[in-house]
This record gives sequence, structure tokens and C-alpha cells, in this order.
Amino acid sequence: MKRTHYCGVLRDEHIGSRVVLKGWVQRKRNLGGLIFVDLRDREGIAQIVFDTAVSQEAFDLAETLRGEFVIEVEGVVRLRESINTTIPTGRIEVFADQLVVINESEIPPIHVQDDDDAGERLRLKYRYLDLRKPKMQQKLRLRSKVTQVVRNFLEQEGFIDFETPMLTKPTPEGARDYLVPSRVNPGKFYALPQSPQLFKQILMVSGFDKYYQITKCFRDEDLRADRQPEFTQIDIEMSFVEPEDVMEVNERMLAKVFEETLGVRPALPFPRLSFDEAMTRYGSDKPDTRYELELVYLNEIVADCGFKVFTDAVSKEGDVRGINLKGASDHISRKEIDKLGEFVKTYGAKGLAWIRLTAEGINSPIAKFFTEDQMAALLEKMQGEMGDILVFVADKPQVVFDSLGALRQEVAKKLNLIPKDVYNFLWVTDFPLFEYDEETGRFVAKHHPFTSPRDEDIELLGSDPGAARAKAYDIVLNGFEIGGGSIRIHKPEVQRKMFRALGFSDEKAQEKFGFLLEAFKYGTPPHGGIAFGLDRLVMLITGSDNIREVIAFPKTQNASCLMSEAPSWVDEDQLEELSVQVKLTEAVVAEETEV
Amino acid sequence: MKRTHYCGVLRDEHIGSRVVLKGWVQRKRNLGGLIFVDLRDREGIAQIVFDTAVSQEAFDLAETLRGEFVIEVEGVVRLRESINTTIPTGRIEVFADQLVVINESEIPPIHVQDDDDAGERLRLKYRYLDLRKPKMQQKLRLRSKVTQVVRNFLEQEGFIDFETPMLTKPTPEGARDYLVPSRVNPGKFYALPQSPQLFKQILMVSGFDKYYQITKCFRDEDLRADRQPEFTQIDIEMSFVEPEDVMEVNERMLAKVFEETLGVRPALPFPRLSFDEAMTRYGSDKPDTRYELELVYLNEIVADCGFKVFTDAVSKEGDVRGINLKGASDHISRKEIDKLGEFVKTYGAKGLAWIRLTAEGINSPIAKFFTEDQMAALLEKMQGEMGDILVFVADKPQVVFDSLGALRQEVAKKLNLIPKDVYNFLWVTDFPLFEYDEETGRFVAKHHPFTSPRDEDIELLGSDPGAARAKAYDIVLNGFEIGGGSIRIHKPEVQRKMFRALGFSDEKAQEKFGFLLEAFKYGTPPHGGIAFGLDRLVMLITGSDNIREVIAFPKTQNASCLMSEAPSWVDEDQLEELSVQVKLTEAVVAEETEV
Repeated sequence: MKRTHYCGVLRDEHIGSRVVLKGWVQRKRNLGGLIFVDLRDREGIAQIVFDTAVSQEAFDLAETLRGEFVIEVEGVVRLRESINTTIPTGRIEVFADQLVVINESEIPPIHVQDDDDAGERLRLKYRYLDLRKPKMQQKLRLRSKVTQVVRNFLEQEGFIDFETPMLTKPTPEGARDYLVPSRVNPGKFYALPQSPQLFKQILMVSGFDKYYQITKCFRDEDLRADRQPEFTQIDIEMSFVEPEDVMEVNERMLAKVFEETLGVRPALPFPRLSFDEAMTRYGSDKPDTRYELELVYLNEIVADCGFKVFTDAVSKEGDVRGINLKGASDHISRKEIDKLGEFVKTYGAKGLAWIRLTAEGINSPIAKFFTEDQMAALLEKMQGEMGDILVFVADKPQVVFDSLGALRQEVAKKLNLIPKDVYNFLWVTDFPLFEYDEETGRFVAKHHPFTSPRDEDIELLGSDPGAARAKAYDIVLNGFEIGGGSIRIHKPEVQRKMFRALGFSDEKAQEKFGFLLEAFKYGTPPHGGIAFGLDRLVMLITGSDNIREVIAFPKTQNASCLMSEAPSWVDEDQLEELSVQVKLTEAVVAEETEV
Repeated sequence: MKRTHYCGVLRDEHIGSRVVLKGWVQRKRNLGGLIFVDLRDREGIAQIVFDTAVSQEAFDLAETLRGEFVIEVEGVVRLRESINTTIPTGRIEVFADQLVVINESEIPPIHVQDDDDAGERLRLKYRYLDLRKPKMQQKLRLRSKVTQVVRNFLEQEGFIDFETPMLTKPTPEGARDYLVPSRVNPGKFYALPQSPQLFKQILMVSGFDKYYQITKCFRDEDLRADRQPEFTQIDIEMSFVEPEDVMEVNERMLAKVFEETLGVRPALPFPRLSFDEAMTRYGSDKPDTRYELELVYLNEIVADCGFKVFTDAVSKEGDVRGINLKGASDHISRKEIDKLGEFVKTYGAKGLAWIRLTAEGINSPIAKFFTEDQMAALLEKMQGEMGDILVFVADKPQVVFDSLGALRQEVAKKLNLIPKDVYNFLWVTDFPLFEYDEETGRFVAKHHPFTSPRDEDIELLGSDPGAARAKAYDIVLNGFEIGGGSIRIHKPEVQRKMFRALGFSDEKAQEKFGFLLEAFKYGTPPHGGIAFGLDRLVMLITGSDNIREVIAFPKTQNASCLMSEAPSWVDEDQLEELSVQVKLTEAVVAEETEV
């Protein structure tokens, strides 16, 4: 028989109808001479009743059902005697007169229910069962919904969906490339793309004007920090645009996504914060603005105090900054303040100075280093009131930002300052073009080498790269960077200056990006774009803890799939055909021997 | 200034408006003291006029313009004096008072125009210029439109868009796998997916009920026959379905695609032909039904004739089949018949027998072997009339089908029998489950090892595999297989029987497909699906000659990208990190030395 309805859609209006349902046995109970089966499909659960008065045969067969059997039932929908208000189909049940066991199931190794407490490794090994859980079904369907909304929006805006190659050219020294040996070009390799960056720029050179693609990208890096070897990017590029044009269309896109998935309508336009302001106020270029806890700059206030840690920092081009943990005095003990001191040390700070403002007065190990006036000025600047705890870090600016930026988050969680169901978007703009890499003593691109400097900063590329700012913008949601982009360089001579500032020789630039440089000779329009991390975006929309929750078949921290057991060994013959062989380094051999 | 319009959209209604256009200089002419520039963007061309009476400055700058310069113009739209009816903007022109040269261009190595005659290698090397051609722009935009229509249709039908992994498990002896060494699992490899087959089946095991994905697949095979190392598949899977359910939704999808891209409304349902009927009538399992030229079975008619080639074939379990080349006598010379004889030999036939029915009577080298009655019977069976040429092949059935199937196509082209703008879809069903591989003396799966036999044929898996038919269906358009699918096996014991029939040991089956077999234990629904080759579909919709025309950045026959120069050599260090090294086989070394 053909299925007439999904289980989960049955309502009062179906009462009296004959239905054919197909699905999985969630549970079976014998009660008062009847058999009740909760039948599950992707839309939900329907209660099936087997009654000997309706069909002895179906009843007898129903006796044999166990969890996760696949069955087909036919029967009549009736109003339940005892309504279950906790599920949408709770007012009805189906009195079955026909039952077919379509497929049986062994006892499943994990429970197909949301409150199953199986560990993640077991869940990943039996992902097909894990994905049967209503919560997981909902997450992956929401993911599909997100891409659908994105596509419809972009297509309405005139963007064209392109596919760029997966088998691309390796970048020399491309430490993060996944390589693919070529059989027909023995000894040569493809690289899986880290992003479609060069190809989307080429498509702008081709005059397509508005490009988008939702595509897999690959990065072979350590998988701490919730990363995956393959991840999905919403990739966008536009010609003849300024940063504001890109931001405008993309914030409308995000607003649409949130409206159509969560029913949330973020206010437009999103706030814009310069990189400097983001750092100064939040110690982070991806600030979570759902709570206050802003940083306060104190160099002038503490310059003359007697606390050497502060005055040293001020005199050595460092910073002293503080955060007022408003009203935290009752919630954070002395011991917990010490823990926060340990916490900021992991970000390179030497320690955390603090002042507790209690009913009994100022309680602080550093109070003695301040005159009464100095302390008054400090409290005023920090807007300190009774019940507050003021905390301070004095160090090199980056250390101060990193440690206080992280401290904000830590304290916000501890004090439950983070409101639920609030989505704070913001753009961070005016990034520096370069970062100075202390290890190599060279400038490296803060975003990538195709990012355009601001027009007035082009001259700085030769003279003072560190001061040059970029036409770059990141989009931040609740403290997560969910996307980032820039206007790209479109003039060959600016691109050459950029490569030189990065210390690339002309030959190396040619080797790395020759075809882009060649393309730039033939009439390249100004262009720019953005890329969103889809996995992270969906993680935030679904309120998940990590991106593995919103990827159907994710890999573990050591880049393995526990279900399919990829990667795996392959035959010698196969490798020979590809003109490669395995050669373990001594380090690997030693490690494997040890194990 | 912000662009106000695309060039190609300007019409009468814009006359009098001030517009800002941005685009590429298609050509420049000085005429009667004015400068005319054809300005091109993705929507088309607008004529810009520079007049010293409007702006001397703009006029002087316009003098410096050359082809493919990127410019910005501002001016007023006016009615042209001499209308150009060949382009949509031909009634208007823009009198420019402002001109900015945004970027210059060297002389491009290929002409950016549809009738450019650059060879394909040059076109691929300068793909960014090639893609500027209106024809190429239109093809790739149509490709985007196709996927858009497919997605919208499938989402409306309740299908969920999934992403399955790109880094998957290699199949043992997976000769067509592209392999990817794993850095964190030294000595192990991922494979790029040949299709998402196993994962989509797993998603059915997970209960998602309706899956789709438009995704890249990879096959490392020789690239003759218009193939690409990476190609795009529209991949679909459904649970609780029979073949007819899958065909029904997919033919509606295709009809929608053709309606929304070409304005063509194919009649539904599409014809269904069994594999046997397709072979018998057309000698092909992907027949082009836009023309007749059907095969005629002649064994009974010729069994007693005196022509040994025919009678031998009949007595040795071979076939004699003919095609009536209706009215071809005036168009196909004796010499051309001989050529057709050579043609069928490339398909294994020993020769082509023929009868020409002319005004002067029967003209044929084989006529003498037939009695008058036999000849009359033959002509009647073949519906031979004056002006026809009858051709015959006698051989093993497969040879007869292959050679006459190919001959149909060849003759249809030669005789211009193929109508333009006709789209003949049909389903071919009831394929044999296996093919017998003469080389290895074993049965191999005609589709793949997860294809379900017809219920009544399950028993044949053990006793007579060659007779078992599959719940498989291919979709054919104008002689091209554009998609194929099947109902899958969903019972572990049937899957085991299938593997045994294929000669896999239980261990090998476990090694190859262990996780699918494991998944089948826990309640697998009946399921089936289909996969379309998007590249080929778009090739047919755009009337292109090969799939490279509808792929933005295709690879050549030796799997190289001429633009980016992928694949390429990589550093030793990079390989060492991946625990592999290049090892050319002796054959490769010898070949390279020779070159």
C-alpha cells in the first residue's frame, strides 16, 4: 500500500480517515488488553492501537514488534480517550487493522531518543541511528532550510550560482593543502581548495558581476577548536562595489535567514565597529555584545600611582585596562578572583589586579598604592559602585586585549549575564592589512594577500605596512566570527606592491598566483565579497555546542570518520598506479613502535 | 558613482534618464566627429556616444580607450538616430558627459565575441576572457538556472538538501578512486567520492525519507568520451518507494526544468521502454527516438535463405536484424554504403549486407541468395518500398545491437533526420541485474551492487544470475543517458546473496561495505533513487557539443587545467609531512625519458 500521511502530521481533521503509515517502532506497550505502538517517521510520532476486536491477526503480529522495526500500518484515525498534550499528534490515535513488518531490527546500540546519553564516539560510529533522533533530524533539516533561504535570497538579488574546481593547483608551501596524486600526470598533485578565492575573483574578471556558491573547502590543520577537515562555505563575490555594498546585501541575507528559520528579525543595519573600537571596548575583534563588561583604558589615570606593575606598563608602551564586573561582589568569591587570575595567565597576562567595592569599603591588595584622589579618579573612570568588582590587566596591548577579552566571556558565563535567544550581529571593519609575525620578523596578511588596502593607505605598503588598513569586514554573531570578507585588489601594480610587502619575490608571486596576475592584465573590475562558515552559522542557529552536531557525517579530532572508517589503508597496486608510495618519517615510525 | 543600470537593460522607457554604467569596452569607432563605444556588461551592450559638444574632457579620454578597458560612464539616454534592430538596446544610446577609466587592458589574446575562432586550448588557458563571451555567459547562467529550478522543485516536494563527505573511505581495488593522503593518520588515505551512494542510503536508514544533493563526484578514468575527473551529480533518494514513484517525481522535475529554461513542456508521463524493447527496436539502451530507423528481427524470415552469413548466424544463436533506411536511395551512394560497412566493423560486425530498392528493381549483392518468395517476405517484413535502402547485420546479438544501434545514429545525422528543438525523453526499465564479464568469467553488477533485483527474481541470484532483472531505470534524452537509478536492496540477506553472486567473499563484502551492512541490521526502510549527470543535462539544454562548454573551469583530456596549471609539482617537505613520496614506475620513467 502507498503511504497516505506522515505519522507526525495527523490531527483532529483526520479523525475518521483511513490512513497508511510507514515508520519505525519507537516503543510498544501492552495495556488493558491493547497494544500501543509509538510509530515514528521524520515528521513525528503517531500512536497506533492494536485491538483484538479490530484484527486478531494484526494484534498477534504486533506482539512480535521490537524497537526500530520498520512497519506499515493501515487503520482509522480516532480521537484518543486520554489526550497527550506534550506531542502535536497527542489528540489522535490510529486503530490498525493491517500490519506489515517491512524490516526487522537488532537491538540498537544507542537509544533513538533525544535524551540518549551515549558518548560522542558511539554516536558517530552509529551515526545512522543517532541521526534518527528528533533533535538531530531537526538540526539537519534546519541546515537545509538555511541554504535554501540563502539561495533564494541571492538568486533574487541577481547572484549566479557557480561551481569552481575541487581539483586545483597546490600552493607552494601550502602547509594546509590536502593533496591528490594525479595518475595521468605522474609525480604531480592536485590540491583540494582551501577556498574558491582565486576562482571567484576570476569569475569577476569574466564579468559575471555577482557570484555565489555554497561549497566544500578543505584545510589540513589540527582539529582543536572545533574545526573539520572539510567544511562548508557560503561564498559570495560582487563587482563594482565598496565595502558598504557587500555589507548591505549580506546583512539583509542574514536577517532573512534568521527570520525564516527562527522567526527572529534582527534590526538593520547591523552595528559597525572599527577594529580599533572593537579591541578597545571588548578586547576582541569578534566581540559578544549581548552583555556589557566593556574594557576601560586607564593609562592616564594610573600613570602616577604607586603600583609599579601599572606604571611600568604605561612607561613601556603597554596598556593598563580594567573591567567593572558590575554587582559581582556577591557572586564572585575571593577564591574565584584568584581563579580568574590563573585564567588570564593562560592568555599571557602576568596576573589580575582587583578592587572589590563592599559595604565595608574598598577591599584590594593594590589599594595601598593609590592616593585617595588617585583611587577616586580610578573609581570614577571605572564607574565603580558598591557591590562591584574591578579587575585590571597591565601588559603589552595585545596581551591586555586577549586576556581581558577572554575574561569578559568567562565572567559573563559565570554570572549568567548572557541573555537567551538574543542574536547580536555586528560588523567589524577597518582591520589592519598586515599582522607582524614575531617569529619570522615579517608581515603577514591579516586576511589574505588579495585584500585591498584603503585607497589612502596604498602608499603605506612600501613605507609603513603595519599602519595600513584594509577594506576588510568581518561579521560577528554573539562573539563568533561567522563570516569575513574584503574588497580585493584589482590593479596589477597594487597587487605587486602587496606581494613585495609580504616579502614574496616576483618569481614566487608568479609561481603562486601567476594566472591571477595574468588575468589582472586584461581589464579587471573592482570587486569584493565575503565568505560565511555555514557549519558555524547553523551551529548558532540551532543552539548547538559544536559544529559536529550540524554535520551529517563529521570527522573526529584526528580527522577520522568512525562510521565508515575513513581514512584507511589502500593496496600497493593502487598507489603504484598513482606513482606514489607510503614513506613514514622516522618520527612517525618511532611513535607507532612505541604504541 | 554607483551604477544605476546594467548596460543590457536600457530600453525606450529610459530615454531622458541619467544613468551610470560600468563595464567593458567591446569596441570603439570614430564616426562623424563623434566617438561610439559599445559598452558590455553581463546583461548586454549599450552604445555610448562621446561628443565634444557634451564634454570635451570625456571625449579626449574616450580617444584613449581600447578593447576590454573597464570604464564608468555617466550620461543621458537618448533615442538613436539610426535604430539597430539586432540588439535589445538598439533603439537607445547614452550621451556621456563623464568617463572614468577604472582599469586598463593589454590586447587580449582571444577575441571576446561569440564568433571568435580561438582553439580550445587557448580558450581554456584564458578562460577568464573566454567566459566574457555572451554565449558562454548565457550557458553558465543557464546552468545556474537549472540547479535553481531543480532545488526549488525538490524542496517543494519535501526533499531535504544534505551534504555528504568529500573525504571518504577508499574502496579496495577502487581503481577509479582519487586518493588523498592523511597527514594525521600516516600511511592512510581518503578517497574522493565516486558518488554519494552509500551515504544517501545511510540517510534513508536514518529516516530522512527524502534526500537530495547537487554535488561533485570524482572518477579517475580515461577522459575520452567527454568525461571530466570531477563532475556534478543531481543526487536523489527516497524511502518507501517503488520504481514508479521515483520516475514520477523525477519526470515532473525534468519537465519543470525544460519549461523554465527553454519554455518547452515535455508531455507527461514519459514513455517507458523495457531494456529488451529498447534493444530490440533501437539496438541501444539509450535510444534516440527523434527518428524512426527501427531494427527489424529477421531470423525466421532468413532462416532458409541461401545466404550463409545469415543462416550461420541463425543456427549459432546469433541474430539477423535489419534497418530500412527509408527513402535513402537517392541520398546514399554505393560508396557511402561501403563506408557504412566499415563503420559497423568498428562495432565488431563482420560487414553490412544491403538491398537497394530502385526504380530499376532490386540492387543487392545478396539478392541472388534469395528465392523470389523469400525476397518478397523479407521486403514485406522490412516494409521495403522503392527508394529505400535495407541494411542488415548478422552476428552475435550484442554485436548486432551495437552496430545497428550506432548505424541508426550515423545515418540519421547523414540524412538530416534529426529534428531541431525536439526533446524526446524516455525511461528504460527492467535492466538485467548483471552483465557477464567475458574477461574474468564473472558476473558484474550492471548498475551497482546495491541495486535490488525484482522481487520474483531474487531466487535467480543463486541459480541463474544472468536472467535476473533489476528494479532499475535510466532516463534517456535524445540518445543520451542523463540519469539512472534503482530501488536498492534493503534486506541484509538479499544484500548478502547479491555479494555472493558477484563473487565477493563475506570478508571482502565486510571490508568494502561493512558499515552499510551493519546499518542494515537496525531497521532499514525500502528505498531507491536516481542520479543525474548535471553537466550532460546542461550540455543538452544549451545545445552544446561537449560538457566542457558548460563547466566554468574544465580540465583537458589529460586531466589538467590549462589556466591554473593544475596538477603541479609539490615540495618534498609537503610530501614528507604526508608520509608519501613520489615513485615513478619503470614504465613512466621510460616514457618520460623517451619524450
